[in-house]
Amino acid sequence: MSSVKAYGAESATTPIVPLTIERREPKPHDVQIEIRYCGVCHSDLHTARNEWGNAIYPCVPGHEIVGVVTAVGSHVKKFKVGDRAGVGCLVDSCRECANCKDGLEQFCHSGAVFSYGSPERDGSGITHGGYSQSIVTHEDFVLHIADNLPLDAAAPLLCAGITTYSPLKYWKVGKGTKVGVLGLGGLGHMGVKLAVAMGAEVTMLSHSPSKEKDAKRLGAHRFVLTSDAAQVKEVTGYFDFILDTVSAEHDYNFYLGLLRTNGTMVCVGVPPSPTPVAAFSIIFGRKSLAGSLIGGLPETQEMLDFCAEHNIVSDIELIRMDEINEAYERMVKGDVRYRFVIDMATL
Amino acid sequence: MSSVKAYGAESATTPIVPLTIERREPKPHDVQIEIRYCGVCHSDLHTARNEWGNAIYPCVPGHEIVGVVTAVGSHVKKFKVGDRAGVGCLVDSCRECANCKDGLEQFCHSGAVFSYGSPERDGSGITHGGYSQSIVTHEDFVLHIADNLPLDAAAPLLCAGITTYSPLKYWKVGKGTKVGVLGLGGLGHMGVKLAVAMGAEVTMLSHSPSKEKDAKRLGAHRFVLTSDAAQVKEVTGYFDFILDTVSAEHDYNFYLGLLRTNGTMVCVGVPPSPTPVAAFSIIFGRKSLAGSLIGGLPETQEMLDFCAEHNIVSDIELIRMDEINEAYERMVKGDVRYRFVIDMATL
Repeated sequence: MSSVKAYGAESATTPIVPLTIERREPKPHDVQIEIRYCGVCHSDLHTARNEWGNAIYPCVPGHEIVGVVTAVGSHVKKFKVGDRAGVGCLVDSCRECANCKDGLEQFCHSGAVFSYGSPERDGSGITHGGYSQSIVTHEDFVLHIADNLPLDAAAPLLCAGITTYSPLKYWKVGKGTKVGVLGLGGLGHMGVKLAVAMGAEVTMLSHSPSKEKDAKRLGAHRFVLTSDAAQVKEVTGYFDFILDTVSAEHDYNFYLGLLRTNGTMVCVGVPPSPTPVAAFSIIFGRKSLAGSLIGGLPETQEMLDFCAEHNIVSDIELIRMDEINEAYERMVKGDVRYRFVIDMATL
Repeated sequence: MSSVKAYGAESATTPIVPLTIERREPKPHDVQIEIRYCGVCHSDLHTARNEWGNAIYPCVPGHEIVGVVTAVGSHVKKFKVGDRAGVGCLVDSCRECANCKDGLEQFCHSGAVFSYGSPERDGSGITHGGYSQSIVTHEDFVLHIADNLPLDAAAPLLCAGITTYSPLKYWKVGKGTKVGVLGLGGLGHMGVKLAVAMGAEVTMLSHSPSKEKDAKRLGAHRFVLTSDAAQVKEVTGYFDFILDTVSAEHDYNFYLGLLRTNGTMVCVGVPPSPTPVAAFSIIFGRKSLAGSLIGGLPETQEMLDFCAEHNIVSDIELIRMDEINEAYERMVKGDVRYRFVIDMATL
């Protein structure tokens, strides 16, 4: 084991502070990555503060991890020292269940091992995430990042990117699809960029007029102010697909009303409490309300390659490691456009 | 116009009583049907009592209508006098919108005309349903009923049959599909028969042990008592598709937990108030909660032909017309196996 510098929470009620954690020596299939940048996801904050009730301390968050390979195990075939590499939300799974075999490791029947706060499959401890100098991960869970993508702005692709790419792909969004994106934050801004790149007609749905300019800059073809009845009427029964990235309370029925016959609304945000759904909202028009969780490893690589091909990265604000607590406070207020990324050189 | 005998409600708070209504003379594309049997759907009761708030009085319910053709307009090509014929929930639509052209007349953009309580498209009045001697309907909205099906037990196919057939078909239920059916009533018992005939592995989900015997008699391969934790555990993450026919309050999240990855639960029942859905219930496993409403005309004919081929009809209890108020009371208590059908000879 090696000791490495990290930042993490020692309890739900204390700030993120410097810590020292242990990383294993690379095993035959492991890749050791020096972390250059780590994106800051809302899940980091929820977990550090134990808002989902499943945190284990000390907790080192971070699952939008990019860096450079510094060592590989003897059997590693996919990576060599000096390669750019990324690690997302997943670092292990059983590889044997139907979901793993289908490339849906996030739904591993034995329980996927997430990048932080998950028990390792071999019982060796609890995983620690990317707010740290380095990480050691099985090569099956390490992604290639093309040379044309700036590493810092590519970091959020590992979670925000795949979380929005996966449902767009699964529900076959493409040329001719009328897509509504709900919420312009870390997820929503990636949803707009990706859906536009897939050829869809993209509308940003927001109750905040201030979002219009940015939505259009990001590529949205249209902006609908959801507090304006006339604008809403124009898109009632209009969308084939709505990507709902909102984690605050909101009325699903209102947005289901904007779907056309056979339309689907996919939630990737998690509101704090269950949301009432009226049967008539889905029965009229044979509509679907669905969910989606990140994406499996093959699709994550596919997404990274798609982003490289289309020059898509996240809009980021680079911060120093010791600014993380302030960044969390700003995230709670929605004051981020659109993702904080930690410059690990500042650790 | 001709005066015909009927039964209907004169207000939300008075019983179903004998009435006289007017039926138009057949126009060139109309089919006149002497009604032999009419099924009794929960919607009849909801509408007669104005429980959905949209009733217009007098209200003559009934949309599971079967009988024999007694006259046809000069341009009618699909029917001749003496043919067996059926009319379901729909009697008109615009025929021009995208949904009508797709055979989804129930979602007509101009508003489908339902068999009772709907304004006629030509402004000539409000439609009256099948609790009557006869009906006159455009041939596009009249269905053929094969000779091998008993007319009385075929009546409920026009609503209960198509309501369950349509989602099973749309979501591609067939050989190898693991289907759960929730609720063993008028809809649920048709769902079991149809899903079994489509080749699916069918499980009845019920909190009432008394339903097991009947579920198996109807063809269900398995019965799961949803109040038994051990039985529930066995089917957690098990079903590809759940057909939810329950109109009482129930916890969608519980049943979503029984779906496997990528599974879909389709609601055809309408609980009295919106049902809370936890985002985690659909996000984990990329699950869908969807709705479905009866079916269009082409699919309704397809369903009737499928039922003829597989000798599928409803389990019914035949009643006299003047027993309708007692039948409603029994329906409210769930005391019907599984559909009341009115013998119109008793009118």
